[in-house]
Formats: sequence, C-alpha cells, structure tokens
Amino acid sequence: MNSFGNLFRISIYGESHSEEMGIIIDNLPAGIKILESDFEEDMKRRKGGFKGTTARVESDRVIIKSGVFKDFSTGAPLALAIKNKNTKSKDYKKLKDIPRPSHADFTAQKKYQGFNDYRGGGFFSGRMTALLVIAGVIAKKILKNIKIEAKITEIGGLGYQEFMENYQLDQDSYGGVVKCEISKLPLGLGEPFFDSLESKLSHLIFSIPGVKAIEFGNGIEGSKMRGSEFNDRIMDAAGRTATNNNGGINGGISNGNEIFFRVFFKPTPSISKEQTSYNFKTGKVEEFRIEGRHDPCFVLRTPVVVDACAAIVLADFWLMEKRN
Amino acid sequence: MNSFGNLFRISIYGESHSEEMGIIIDNLPAGIKILESDFEEDMKRRKGGFKGTTARVESDRVIIKSGVFKDFSTGAPLALAIKNKNTKSKDYKKLKDIPRPSHADFTAQKKYQGFNDYRGGGFFSGRMTALLVIAGVIAKKILKNIKIEAKITEIGGLGYQEFMENYQLDQDSYGGVVKCEISKLPLGLGEPFFDSLESKLSHLIFSIPGVKAIEFGNGIEGSKMRGSEFNDRIMDAAGRTATNNNGGINGGISNGNEIFFRVFFKPTPSISKEQTSYNFKTGKVEEFRIEGRHDPCFVLRTPVVVDACAAIVLADFWLMEKRN
Amino acid sequence: MNSFGNLFRISIYGESHSEEMGIIIDNLPAGIKILESDFEEDMKRRKGGFKGTTARVESDRVIIKSGVFKDFSTGAPLALAIKNKNTKSKDYKKLKDIPRPSHADFTAQKKYQGFNDYRGGGFFSGRMTALLVIAGVIAKKILKNIKIEAKITEIGGLGYQEFMENYQLDQDSYGGVVKCEISKLPLGLGEPFFDSLESKLSHLIFSIPGVKAIEFGNGIEGSKMRGSEFNDRIMDAAGRTATNNNGGINGGISNGNEIFFRVFFKPTPSISKEQTSYNFKTGKVEEFRIEGRHDPCFVLRTPVVVDACAAIVLADFWLMEKRN
Amino acid sequence: MNSFGNLFRISIYGESHSEEMGIIIDNLPAGIKILESDFEEDMKRRKGGFKGTTARVESDRVIIKSGVFKDFSTGAPLALAIKNKNTKSKDYKKLKDIPRPSHADFTAQKKYQGFNDYRGGGFFSGRMTALLVIAGVIAKKILKNIKIEAKITEIGGLGYQEFMENYQLDQDSYGGVVKCEISKLPLGLGEPFFDSLESKLSHLIFSIPGVKAIEFGNGIEGSKMRGSEFNDRIMDAAGRTATNNNGGINGGISNGNEIFFRVFFKPTPSISKEQTSYNFKTGKVEEFRIEGRHDPCFVLRTPVVVDACAAIVLADFWLMEKRN
Repeated sequence: MNSFGNLFRISIYGESHSEEMGIIIDNLPAGIKILESDFEEDMKRRKGGFKGTTARVESDRVIIKSGVFKDFSTGAPLALAIKNKNTKSKDYKKLKDIPRPSHADFTAQKKYQGFNDYRGGGFFSGRMTALLVIAGVIAKKILKNIKIEAKITEIGGLGYQEFMENYQLDQDSYGGVVKCEISKLPLGLGEPFFDSLESKLSHLIFSIPGVKAIEFGNGIEGSKMRGSEFNDRIMDAAGRTATNNNGGINGGISNGNEIFFRVFFKPTPSISKEQTSYNFKTGKVEEFRIEGRHDPCFVLRTPVVVDACAAIVLADFWLMEKRN
Repeated sequence: MNSFGNLFRISIYGESHSEEMGIIIDNLPAGIKILESDFEEDMKRRKGGFKGTTARVESDRVIIKSGVFKDFSTGAPLALAIKNKNTKSKDYKKLKDIPRPSHADFTAQKKYQGFNDYRGGGFFSGRMTALLVIAGVIAKKILKNIKIEAKITEIGGLGYQEFMENYQLDQDSYGGVVKCEISKLPLGLGEPFFDSLESKLSHLIFSIPGVKAIEFGNGIEGSKMRGSEFNDRIMDAAGRTATNNNGGINGGISNGNEIFFRVFFKPTPSISKEQTSYNFKTGKVEEFRIEGRHDPCFVLRTPVVVDACAAIVLADFWLMEKRN
Repeated sequence: MNSFGNLFRISIYGESHSEEMGIIIDNLPAGIKILESDFEEDMKRRKGGFKGTTARVESDRVIIKSGVFKDFSTGAPLALAIKNKNTKSKDYKKLKDIPRPSHADFTAQKKYQGFNDYRGGGFFSGRMTALLVIAGVIAKKILKNIKIEAKITEIGGLGYQEFMENYQLDQDSYGGVVKCEISKLPLGLGEPFFDSLESKLSHLIFSIPGVKAIEFGNGIEGSKMRGSEFNDRIMDAAGRTATNNNGGINGGISNGNEIFFRVFFKPTPSISKEQTSYNFKTGKVEEFRIEGRHDPCFVLRTPVVVDACAAIVLADFWLMEKRN
Repeated sequence: MNSFGNLFRISIYGESHSEEMGIIIDNLPAGIKILESDFEEDMKRRKGGFKGTTARVESDRVIIKSGVFKDFSTGAPLALAIKNKNTKSKDYKKLKDIPRPSHADFTAQKKYQGFNDYRGGGFFSGRMTALLVIAGVIAKKILKNIKIEAKITEIGGLGYQEFMENYQLDQDSYGGVVKCEISKLPLGLGEPFFDSLESKLSHLIFSIPGVKAIEFGNGIEGSKMRGSEFNDRIMDAAGRTATNNNGGINGGISNGNEIFFRVFFKPTPSISKEQTSYNFKTGKVEEFRIEGRHDPCFVLRTPVVVDACAAIVLADFWLMEKRN
C-alpha cells in the first residue's frame, strides 16, 4: 500500500527516471534537529566503494521540502527528496520488447498493462532504496544510543576479505550476504504475533530489490539442531543468555541480547554478457545484450540500506513502546 | 497491531488458557458457502500425524459466530472461534519464576510488567496458529483453482522420509524445514516495494512461533551464484522461464511460474530433559525440568499452517487485484 | 474496514440475530483492572428509562473472552462479547419482500446481492451500538480524570424536560438531539488535518445508526456570525477563552477549554403506523405495517453511546500523545 | 496519521511557507490519462471569484513529480506538487507572542512545544486544501459519470444571491454554508458501521480548516420530525423514494437517490479589525491587529474543496466496490 510503519510511517514516490523521488515521514516528534548535511554520510555509503561498481555518478543531495523550521522538526510531515540527473533514457528503449531476465520488466508490464514506466526499471529500480537510506538517517536520530551495524560477510560464495583480494571483473555479476547486528536495544520491543520483530524486519528487508532470503539468529543451522543444543539458557536477571541462537528475539520481542540477522542477495540481474530472453515483438527467444554499464555486485551498496531498514522498524517499535 | 491484510483482513483474540480463541475476517465478499464442517480437514492436519507428538487432544471444532446466514457469507465480518478445553493450569505455575529458554516467557513478562497470562505461553502459544489455519480455509475458498501445497522436506537435518524411519523418541526435540509450492497462480499478484509478495508472505510466516528463516526460490544458494547462472531466462509470451531460481517472483510480483519458498523452524523449545535457566525468585541459575508432555517436533504440525499463511496473503492480493 | 482507531483500536463482529456479538480491543496497555461487573452501569444506561421504550429485555451481561488474567489486562487483545437471546426471527420474514423505509433493508440487500442477514437489520442493527458502549467503558479507564457527559437536549423539537411531561405514546416515533460535553481534557490532543478531533469524532459518531448531523461548538449558528463575534479571545496562559464558539477545538486540536458537540438523530425508522413501500415480490407499492413492538424514541438510549464514542476517540489520541 | 482512504489513498506534505507542498496518491490504477493542465480549472475555482477576496496571487500550477509516463498513470504512486511563492514571512512574526483567536496558533505551539512553523499557520493553513483539490481532480477521473456539485447556499446568514448584492467590505469576516449534491452515483457504495458514507465524508470534510458542522439530508430539521414524516417511502425497484430526507444514504450506504449534505463554515478567523488576545511575552491580554490582507470570506473558495472531498471519498468506495 506504499507505506510502512504504524507510528514512524514512511510513504514514497518517484521512479528511476522521474525528475525527483521523495519520501514522507509521518508522526515524527517535534524538536528533532535535522540538517541537509545529516544525510551525506549514509548517502555516500550507499554508493559502494569497490572498483568496477557502476560509474553512474548519482547526485544524491537530500532536499528538505517541509517539516523542518529553523533546523528542527516541526511536528508536521517531514518531506525529503532527491533529484534524478544524468538519466540516459536511450539505454532502456529495448526493455519494452525484451524483458530482462530476473528483473521486474515482465511482471510490471503485465501488471500495469504496459503503462509502467519501463525506463531503468521505473518504480522497481534499486535506486528507490536511496529513500530507505534517507528514512534510516531520521530513524537513527530517534534511536539515539542503539547501535546498528550491517556488513557484508560473503560475496560470490567467498568471505568478504577473500573475495576482495581475488575477484576479477568480467561481464558477469555476484550475489552475497549481509549480516546486521543490533546492540544496546532495550528489552521488550516488538509486538506479539502479526507484528513480531521478525515479521516487521523481514517485511521491510524484502522491499529491497534483490533480497531472496533472511535468517534471524542461527535459524538455518538451527533447523538441523536439537532443542537441547539450540535453546539459549538465561543466565541473569537482565536476560543475558549463554548462547544466542535465537538472535536476540523471543516471541517476536527483543530479549536484551544482541539482535542479528542475515540477508541473502541474488546476483545483480543486469550483466553485460550475452543472454537470451523472449522478444515480444518478434515472438522468438533471442540473444541480446543489456547495454550500458552495470553494477557487477550491488551487494556492496546494500549494508547501509539494510541498517536503515533495521532502524526504521526499530524506530516504529520504539515510538509504540513509549505509549505505555 | 493485531491484524493482517489490506482487504482480506484478519484480527485475532484468545490466549492459550482463555476459554475461547477466535478470529474476525473482514471484507469477505457475500455469497461464499461456509459450513462448520469445512474446517475439519485442515484442523485435523494441524494435529500432526506422528507417534510421540503431544497427546493433548485438542477439541478444535470451529464455531461460526456471525457473518454466515443460511450457509453463505453475509458480507458482515465473519467471526469464527474454537474452545480451549482440558487445559491443565497446574503445569504452568513454575514459569513465573523460571522462564523457559527459547520461549517468550521472559520477554512477555518484561514487556507486560508481569501482567501477561503466563499459562501455556498465553498469547505467544503455538496454539494461536489454529486461527491461521481457520483463516486459511476461508482464503482458499477465494483462491479457488490455485494450488498451494506445503510439505516437510527436512527434520533434524535429515530428509523427511529418512528421518521418519530412523528417529528415536527421547527427551529432546527437533527442528525442520517446510517447503511451500504454489501453482496455477495468475501473473501480476503482489505490489511493488513495501508490499511485495516476499514482504507480505514473510511478514505472516514469521508470525508462526518458531520460524527463524525464510528463503524464496533458491535465494540462499543463489547468493553464491553468478548472474549468468541465477537469471531465469524467459521462454515464451506467458513468461515461463527455463529455470526458476527466483521462485516465481520478480519485483515482488508473481511472474506466472510456480512460487516456492522454504520455512526454517527451530527445534521445539519445550523439552523434557533437564535444562538450566535463571530463577527470578532465588536469583540463581538453576537446573529445572519442564513438566507435562511435549511435542518433540512441532514442525510436523506446521505444513497446514504454512499453506494457510500463503493462502491468506494471496487472497488479500487477489482481492486487491480485482479492483483494477 | 470494520475497525476504528490507530492505537486504541476496536474491531467488531455479530449481527442482530447471531448467537453472539463481540469486540476486540487492541493495544490496550497491560495492568488495567477489568471486571465483568464494570460494564453493568453503562449497559443499563443504554436500555433507556422511558415508558413506552421497547419492552424487549436484552440480557447484556458482558463476557470477557480473553486478554484479562487475574482481573488485569494482559497486554494481549481484549475480547469482550454479549449474547443475543429471545430474538423472535418470525417478525422479520417480511423484510425480504418489503424493505422498511429509512432502514438499511434495501441498501443491504442490493450491496450483498441478497445474502445479507435481514433479520433485525443484521449488521445494520442499532443493537451493534452495545459494542461501542463496551469499548467506551474500557476507554474511560484510560482517560481517568477526564469528564465526558452526554445528555439529551431536545426530543421531537421540544426541550427534554418539556417533552417528557407532555408526550403521548402513539404509533409514531421521535428524533432528537444529544449534546456531549468533555471537560478536564488536556491541551494538545488531536492531530492536524486528516485526523483532527472533529474528523475522528464525527467519523465514529456517524457509525451510530440514525445520526444525520453533527455540530462542534456553535458551528451552525456560527455560520451566520461575523468573525469579530465568533472568534474566542484567549484570556490567559492556559488558553482559556472568553467565549467558546469553537467548542474547545482549534486546528483539530483540543485547546484546553471544554469540548462540546451536538448530535442530531432522525426519528426511529420503525413505527407501528401503516406505511407504504415497494414490494419486490408483487412489484407494487403497498401499504404494510411493521409488526412487533418498537422503540418510539431510540434517542433515549443514545447518550451513553455518544459518550462512549467520545471516550474511544479520546483514548486513541491519548495513547498517541503519550508517545511524544 | 497524515493519510486518508483505504484504496484511493492520499498523503500530504508541506506547510504554508515551505518551498513546496505536495500529495501522494496511492493505488491509482494504471492507464488513466493525466495532464498538468487537467488541474487548472479546479485550481482556479479555489481562488474564489469575489471582490474583496485576498489579493495574494497564488501560483498554483500543479507539477507531476512521478507516477505518469507519456501522459498516463503508470501504477506507481502518483506525486503532485505546487510551489509556494511570494510568501511574506514578515507578516507572521508576531504570532509567536500573540496567538490569533480562533486559529491554531496556540494549540500548535503547545502541541509541538514551540517547534511548529508558525508562519502563515504552517501545516494548519487553509492553503493545504489546495492539495485536496488536486486529489479531487484525480478522483473525479475514476468516478467518470458521477456528478458532484457543491455550491454556496448561505453567507453571513443570508442567501448567496441576496448576500452578494448587499455586502459591504469592512474589516470583519463572514461564515457560510455549502451544499454538496451527488447524482448518478450507483447503489451500494459505502461500508457498514465504521466506514459508513457519512463517517468517511464527515471525516474528510472536517479536515478542511473552518468547518464546524455537517448535515446529511435533512438531518437537523429531521431531529424535530416524527418517523411518519421523515421516512422516505420507496417507490420502485430502483429504490427511488418519494421524499429524500435521508439524503440518499441508508445504513451508511448509497441508496440510489441523490446524495446531499451541507457543510457549515465559521467566519474567517483573520480579520483586520482590532482584537484582543493573550500576549505570552508580556503576560497580559492586549489589543492587537492582524497585519496584511485577509480573506473576508474564505467560504467563497470552498465549494471546489468540498466537492473534491466528496470525490476522494467516493473514489475510495468505488475501488472498494470493484473488488466484489
């Protein structure tokens, strides 16, 4: 329904090639200091830092449209936007005829009867995640001392360090895994059943294009374990546990230990290599090549998106909890 | 917020030891045939079929409270309930002092300042999933020809068949994996970004107590693959693909191929074996034993819950899509 | 969508002749004392106290289904219900053929293609307002010292006292006006624009069958006034005003003065007098008589419903405000 | 919560003196033709046409930010905005000290602890209604043949025509009444109980600054009538009634007759005349004068806002109904 969150609620607009994309954040308390420069660091992190990453320089200066007066939030909806520049529309003309494999070209065209803006993936573009990063910056202001850190643990089946030393750029792409760790989070965040921490975190994380799996704690390995091994024994009145297989969450609620989860990304769908797909114009399966420069591993850009998602979900639960 | 869904919307009540638990289903179209006997088959599937499963016989006759007149839905909210019987309250007295590891006992007590109904896990009980099964039966009526099938693929690290031939009941418990397959689903269900098919399916699946990971398509293995291997080549005008690594979903929208996802369950937290936990009364870590009979592998009961969740999410998207 | 409220959120089920009707209240803080006897006084007020009021004795004992343990709210959804008894189904058979004027018989039949439960008005029955009264009792527990009082100011065009001394029961019915006053409400409740106090109060008040107009402050007379007369001059730092034409609300937010609003009810649609309506079976306009005993003035029962609505809306804003 | 609607859903941003204000419309079907020029007529209507109306020329060209491609809606969120120009900030400095009577200056300052943007009323400005007009233009595209017409029936206690011939501009202001009529609306729109047509219409109408009462059909006069007079007799199979006291709505659902309702506006709070209010700086009640030019009767600008609100609500119900 194009918004997320019960109290810290975000709604977005924009498409890959629209003039502008933006986000509205509702219910933000008044009196929070917000400067346009606050966004620079996280927006820069989203560009990735890896040789071979797409050279398209994105001008992602965040503009405050409303909701801030004399550098503080006013209590009115906070509207933030970025401009889309240097978009080369000519690269995307072919997509109408030959949908790119593993992209949303085909599903979007069918769902919207051909009216979708196919340029750059339109509303399905990975560029939309810049808006999550923007919201994450604001969410982190609410969460203050809570520490959220996402990092790449695996690329192309190798450990991050190992991969970085050995990779060779070719016309193909890589997937990977990002692990997010949250510490100093108070006990008791999350709501039972429908709005468990896992439910809300996974809901938002799967909004990131390219995510295909998520694991809380040691959930995958844990499915092979026995209860006596997996159970985390409580050791003190603060709820600290001897092990942390549950990843800091019980019954959908934070238990005072570190929360951690892993996000699995598929390889970048756009590759320079020749591929085959169905050509709707000719009615035949054909070889084709996606033109332009592509990001061989968009996973490198995602840690800041993942930690933004965690912050957004936690800020929402934080505001929920304060009502009690 | 205790409800799920935009149009096919469910809200629940009840706790493990309350007299009754129930569910309201909103926005159900009028004129759908609903009999109390419609629920029998799925409610029976939820009991598991495995020797050693908890012997507590649950009387899960579904009662139609309102919303049905002369065997057809009236258009008013549909209210359905089951009674809780034979609940042995005496088994649970200890939980107040010694929270069971890997359960919600500790988090619930902290979140609700000790006012939570700790008997049988209260609102955090696995028994609440009976309500998902009930809603699933109604959702499947909306989906008609769509085929949803969930089955156990792995228990305790072994394939289902292998496990069933070899397991020995002891005082411990097992986790496992359930795979859900959805076929004959039309193209175009799901909404972009915040309400992707993966977002909504994972949201509801993580409401099931004990779920710790979910994988769409071959998402985990895919994180180690290269784009040229992972990409599913489109082969015809209907969108059929040569491979199905994306699990039938692109851009959060069904692409006309089979949808499949895997759900990873942790081992049943309650085991008969002696464990240790913190005793809030004595202020010490102590050995203790959870009394009563326990389900050594609740995964055996979950396929019907998983397919119910899939049906609920798809029914919601189905009603959304019909508006266009 | 069958629920109301952002944080103090209510969802209902039941129809006039279903076995039971009930309400779920979500997000209620844990630790609030709730006894079944708490509802008695307000449920009795809803019966009206006027000679000639319908003699159908309603057994409205409120049953706590879940969400309360040892007399205190647990933090889980609170489910409350009442039973429907002594419902004479035979009285309502005719409604299928001849829709009663000013009732929902015709619109319900069309909207639900004839599947609606027409007995007693089904989901459109005034009896559903008993659920608002139940929720109101809980809402008032949250609001503590805030004083909400609704009273009849006018019936059949006369002042309440004048009417009560002079009325003669005949086969016809009366409308009337209820005024609700709220005092000791803190400054700052309500949200700007879409969720103004007036927006939310009117939204819920118009859920009460038979309400056709609402006026905040002196809004009707005010439309004929000039700004210099209508404007309420602020007299002190607490915001007290010399006059209160705005009824205690500016910009949709409570301004610290008494809030008051008037609710206008149409006359009870069911009268014993002969009326005419279209007979769908014969295809002719026919004279007919609604059988059974009818309430000549349901307005007498509504003050407790109106104050319950006010309490529900204010409890929601109260929980919203606490988050800041 | 800063949004309105279940399917045709709008969210807004901007404040009186922010650079820009805008609106996001979600769930709009793809393939609807939308040009920037479509908004001109209604935006012009909002300027009022009356000598003496505020001379501040508003440059309200509507900009399409995203959601439209080659002149048709894409299925992605539709974002529309207008720029704020020529805002004279100097006029508003005093408001911090002396809150204007009948305005939101005082409540906003208290609710947001002084962080609100007080210039021009900030988020509480009547200028925000331009966004409702914009959404109304889109809503009307969905409603096609349905006819919605709002007109002023009364100003300053006189009939519109009578007033226009006799008024004398002075330093004071006027209130008034707008009547909205909706014809050719199909039977069956609206939802029972919480989301009745009256509930949703009043909810949105009370978002318009200055509205203090609403009446559906002849609800105010009807409260003085008897059932036999008020009841609208059904005359044929299409549900046409002999009278229309219920204003085309029964049980919260459209009954096939013309819908009509009246909206009561208070006089413009800003007047040029000297007034008194509390000065927070000096701690005294003082005489003061609101500087700048003011709109002596903003009611003249509101018919287009009222019909936009009706269109927004009906478009939402229209999309809801299509799901059946």
